[in-house]
Amino acid sequence: MTDTKTKAVVLLSGGADSTTCLAIARAEGYASYALSFDYGQRHEAELKSAVRVAKDLGAEEHLILTLPLGAIGGSALTAPIEVPKNVPPEQMRDRIPVTYVPARNTIFLSLALAWAEVLHASDIFIGVNALDYSGYPDCRPEFIESFQKMANLAIRESVEGRMQIRIHTPLISMTKARILRRGIELGVDFSLTHSCYDPDSKGRACGRCDSCTLRRKGFAEAEIPDPTVYAPRR
Amino acid sequence: MTDTKTKAVVLLSGGADSTTCLAIARAEGYASYALSFDYGQRHEAELKSAVRVAKDLGAEEHLILTLPLGAIGGSALTAPIEVPKNVPPEQMRDRIPVTYVPARNTIFLSLALAWAEVLHASDIFIGVNALDYSGYPDCRPEFIESFQKMANLAIRESVEGRMQIRIHTPLISMTKARILRRGIELGVDFSLTHSCYDPDSKGRACGRCDSCTLRRKGFAEAEIPDPTVYAPRR
Repeated sequence: MTDTKTKAVVLLSGGADSTTCLAIARAEGYASYALSFDYGQRHEAELKSAVRVAKDLGAEEHLILTLPLGAIGGSALTAPIEVPKNVPPEQMRDRIPVTYVPARNTIFLSLALAWAEVLHASDIFIGVNALDYSGYPDCRPEFIESFQKMANLAIRESVEGRMQIRIHTPLISMTKARILRRGIELGVDFSLTHSCYDPDSKGRACGRCDSCTLRRKGFAEAEIPDPTVYAPRR
Repeated sequence: MTDTKTKAVVLLSGGADSTTCLAIARAEGYASYALSFDYGQRHEAELKSAVRVAKDLGAEEHLILTLPLGAIGGSALTAPIEVPKNVPPEQMRDRIPVTYVPARNTIFLSLALAWAEVLHASDIFIGVNALDYSGYPDCRPEFIESFQKMANLAIRESVEGRMQIRIHTPLISMTKARILRRGIELGVDFSLTHSCYDPDSKGRACGRCDSCTLRRKGFAEAEIPDPTVYAPRR
């Protein structure tokens, strides 16, 4: 009974975090509209995961928008810059890594906002995490709060008083282990997800980039078998 | 001597307002990086104007990004909805028109922010106007202020203290007549610009949409000859 449920736009990369975020939105009773971006990220395997996950978790719709972020530049994810390997998690917070994409969450949330207005969905879910966050400024609570304020001044539906946009960040203060455990509780099949920044041509995870390092550590701490398919050591 | 000048990203649609805004950025001594969007707007003639104007006003670079806003929907500018004609200017403020594109300035400013960070440009110019503004919520000063606050929490260059983003809105409280006069003072050739929401196949202005109505009225009030090429009455 889709039309009796409140709609939410859920940003979905296809990684473990955004997938758990989608499962949480579903568990909270929202009709989910998954939004993914093809932004020239090297890890296209992510998008394939997003498609599988959106289907598996029963998203009402899954919209994939193509964004030419590579033309703007400035990131190892969209340009030929080497992705760093084997950085210990405790050092990740000390520097913003080259995998940082300028203004990425601002851009993604802006497009989510546009779709939310068209759908009359007042709720937007984003799986940012400020704890194991790998150093991105646009994953912090103060950024999210500020975006929400701005959003309610930006769109017709808010300005004319018909809805207030709420940005939900259910993972923001969870450890990776807790995120994975919550996902398992909600029936997430993590073998469908993809987190690696630098997979091989078969889409297998490198096991050594920041994203793989955090994910491996999370599975180990959560004492959940890691279903990730890793590439043989190059 | 480009590299001694401060860089600014200038949003450029190719219309009279954004063109004057670019001329103002230049007059204030900035090295301008013009940013335009191909977002499935019906008036592609705008983009051709943007290319001419960026060249004519000496932009250092002109980046045109393709955005699939039509896939999100919700606007007469990107979908087959009729553009209203002959609305008197005094009635435009009473309703947000169907030419409203959900979250458009939020999306455009987000991408300008990303480019600004890559260029190390702390200044962004946008030709929004709150007076003759045709009813868009994301043209109001409170929206712009809120976006600027959010921007400074979003990007690495700001969060690490190397720059503060400033959003400049030099036209925000000008009448259309004053914008046109200021453009003329700064050497803008308005025959290169395009404002119409619904041009004919030859790119000629309809003369009757909100944008044409405001532009015509502006030229009349400024007592400047209108260089616009209008289509014969259909």
